[in-house]
Amino acid sequence: MGCNVRSEHVDLDAVAAIRRERVDWRFKGLPADVFGATVGEVADRRLDLFADGFVGPLVVLDAAALEHNLVTMERWCAERGVLLAPHGKTTMAPQLFARQLAHGAWGVTAANTSQLRVYRAFGVRRVLLANQLVDPAGLRWLAGELAADPDFEFACWVDSVAAVDRMTEALGTPERPVDVLVELGAPGGRTGARDQATAVAVARAALASPALRLAGVGGYEGALAHDAAVESLSAVDRYLDDLRALAIGIADLFEVDEPIVTAGGSAYFDQVAVKITGEWPFPVRPVLRSGAYITHDDGFYRGISPLGRTPGAEPFRSALRAWAQVTSHPQEDLALLTLGKRDASFDEGLPEPQVVRGRDGVERPLDAEVTALNDQHAFLALRRGEDVEVGDWVALGLSHPCTVFDKWQLIPVVEGTTVVDLVRTYF
Amino acid sequence: MGCNVRSEHVDLDAVAAIRRERVDWRFKGLPADVFGATVGEVADRRLDLFADGFVGPLVVLDAAALEHNLVTMERWCAERGVLLAPHGKTTMAPQLFARQLAHGAWGVTAANTSQLRVYRAFGVRRVLLANQLVDPAGLRWLAGELAADPDFEFACWVDSVAAVDRMTEALGTPERPVDVLVELGAPGGRTGARDQATAVAVARAALASPALRLAGVGGYEGALAHDAAVESLSAVDRYLDDLRALAIGIADLFEVDEPIVTAGGSAYFDQVAVKITGEWPFPVRPVLRSGAYITHDDGFYRGISPLGRTPGAEPFRSALRAWAQVTSHPQEDLALLTLGKRDASFDEGLPEPQVVRGRDGVERPLDAEVTALNDQHAFLALRRGEDVEVGDWVALGLSHPCTVFDKWQLIPVVEGTTVVDLVRTYF
Repeated sequence: MGCNVRSEHVDLDAVAAIRRERVDWRFKGLPADVFGATVGEVADRRLDLFADGFVGPLVVLDAAALEHNLVTMERWCAERGVLLAPHGKTTMAPQLFARQLAHGAWGVTAANTSQLRVYRAFGVRRVLLANQLVDPAGLRWLAGELAADPDFEFACWVDSVAAVDRMTEALGTPERPVDVLVELGAPGGRTGARDQATAVAVARAALASPALRLAGVGGYEGALAHDAAVESLSAVDRYLDDLRALAIGIADLFEVDEPIVTAGGSAYFDQVAVKITGEWPFPVRPVLRSGAYITHDDGFYRGISPLGRTPGAEPFRSALRAWAQVTSHPQEDLALLTLGKRDASFDEGLPEPQVVRGRDGVERPLDAEVTALNDQHAFLALRRGEDVEVGDWVALGLSHPCTVFDKWQLIPVVEGTTVVDLVRTYF
Repeated sequence: MGCNVRSEHVDLDAVAAIRRERVDWRFKGLPADVFGATVGEVADRRLDLFADGFVGPLVVLDAAALEHNLVTMERWCAERGVLLAPHGKTTMAPQLFARQLAHGAWGVTAANTSQLRVYRAFGVRRVLLANQLVDPAGLRWLAGELAADPDFEFACWVDSVAAVDRMTEALGTPERPVDVLVELGAPGGRTGARDQATAVAVARAALASPALRLAGVGGYEGALAHDAAVESLSAVDRYLDDLRALAIGIADLFEVDEPIVTAGGSAYFDQVAVKITGEWPFPVRPVLRSGAYITHDDGFYRGISPLGRTPGAEPFRSALRAWAQVTSHPQEDLALLTLGKRDASFDEGLPEPQVVRGRDGVERPLDAEVTALNDQHAFLALRRGEDVEVGDWVALGLSHPCTVFDKWQLIPVVEGTTVVDLVRTYF
């Protein structure tokens, strides 16, 4: 994994060292037989998910779907001349960062200081922190990291003069100033200056700060819409026009030759790519930050991904799946699975039962619905004529990968039912 | 921590070894200065949460509230002659298990095989698995664990003849049979046999199995009600009467001298204690499994805990609190905090802003509401006349400890703002 990565973008030795970590009871679901072996040794054994002692519940990654998504996004970005700094918060998995970078990613996006530290522990060279960073302890650590590694490229958001002041107070006159992008928001949105005048004032403050270097503009269109209705797509476009106008309006203030212009979650990155590339009166680095594409999902992103909505586009494939056993079947129309809020996402739709695998290993589609999750149980409502048995395994599609990965520290990667790798997360 | 624990109940050396683990970037929020030091060394430094380099967001445990809750529950159970096997899924923190056992707990409850493995890695001697356990790999591992340690006491639920069959197939004729408790449920509930006749059939099947030993009855009243309305309390009482009737009805089938009778989440444990203690025609071990009491909360459990609802009772205190910084204040009535779905629970109510701490260290009550959580952001709606500044810290009460602990691997324990210990979780 990661054999093609451009090594200047990530510390391949640190990523490879994950394979030397010992597996034990700290990692949910793994076979007790392999406790004491390394991650790499477990991967090399090509274990079977159902024959070799894994215990439920499990979440697994599909190797072919991962590769498909990596290739699809790489090609898509290359064709549009847009750079990609995928949001690494989704997986917090350096092995996957390495693959994203090997597939052409320009950098990796982070959300906070603790995430940034994980990235730096694995030598991620170019990071966008898609957030304000105002805490003095985090800023001082960042300044040290920038001073110690001249190749480390970093930028974070600023959306207020107050944030510029906090940063300047904490940083003083650092060896290397911290690159900042003025964040534009919109009324009703999340962070970001609410209008051009405010954004320009923030840009001027950043320019005036000895601690900061004004390096571009950024924002997040995903806070302004949540579906693919015409009005939602229009709101996104209007916002992106404003972001473009801001970049052009403060062109004279940028302290770099090629300012960054960045937006893009996983729902509207097609519109973002159009608006941040194209004709500019000066050279810019157009950067998308979509992160969920690497696994996609069977819920929210399946419904909203531009590659699913665009006729003729090659859609991403869901690479995440949970497996849980039927442990109780107390009523004709109800079974309970060993899967709960500790194991699966539930914030953007409940898990979707897809397949039942009998004790004989035969799989068939399952006509049922998860109606509720408790901490450690899923309620499986069986439709009329459908049945399962205690001991059967059920495969479930998941919605919103971000709240799946953070429940698993070591995730098997499978080809069919064969485990070909294990992905370590750091939350 | 844990100095008074009865060492036969948990492996104190294993718990103490947590203090020797090295702290680094794998643990969210900790000061970079202490990376490389051990957990014990960090605890001994008596760091200040705001002066010594912690970065937000953070979740902390209040030392005094933890102690209060431990003492309160110990006394409460002792006064009622009820045993306590707190559900350890809440915290998955062996340091806290040791303290619960030191405060009189009889055992610890688990939800699945992976949790049981964590418990056994720390030598927890007596475990209730409040679930069916039907997967062959988990059962074979359990049989080995029972064979290897004659002091290990274990029981899990069975609620169907099919589950008995699955267990028997997987276990064959083990060195030590696996203790099982017949689980009684109720229509509209979660797991558990739906009527006495079914439960009796399950008991007979367990008795007939060479792999199992029928050791009691159990269930979970918390699946039948979610508030303290009169009808809810009545439904709980009716269920507990049925559980008692089941135990009496199958008295002749038990294969142990003193069968376990167990129920009890954190919402109705007062009613459970009444119904499972009292006069029995034969000796029983009445066991509560309430787990959330150790931290209590500022949401769901604050509203429903019997000690909060009973006049004159000493209530539990919330021991969990999140701290996050204001990083953006883009509108007069809106600020954004560095706290999201990755950091705080959101399934039983959103975090409750309680206090704002200015950069001068002065704290005051905060009149605001969290209206939404994104993955890494909280939306703080400020009421008219209230204001915060970028850089301020905000303290937030949390609801439902189970979905807080699973987001943190190392949690500072504080006295005021001084970190006096660190609790390690294993999810």
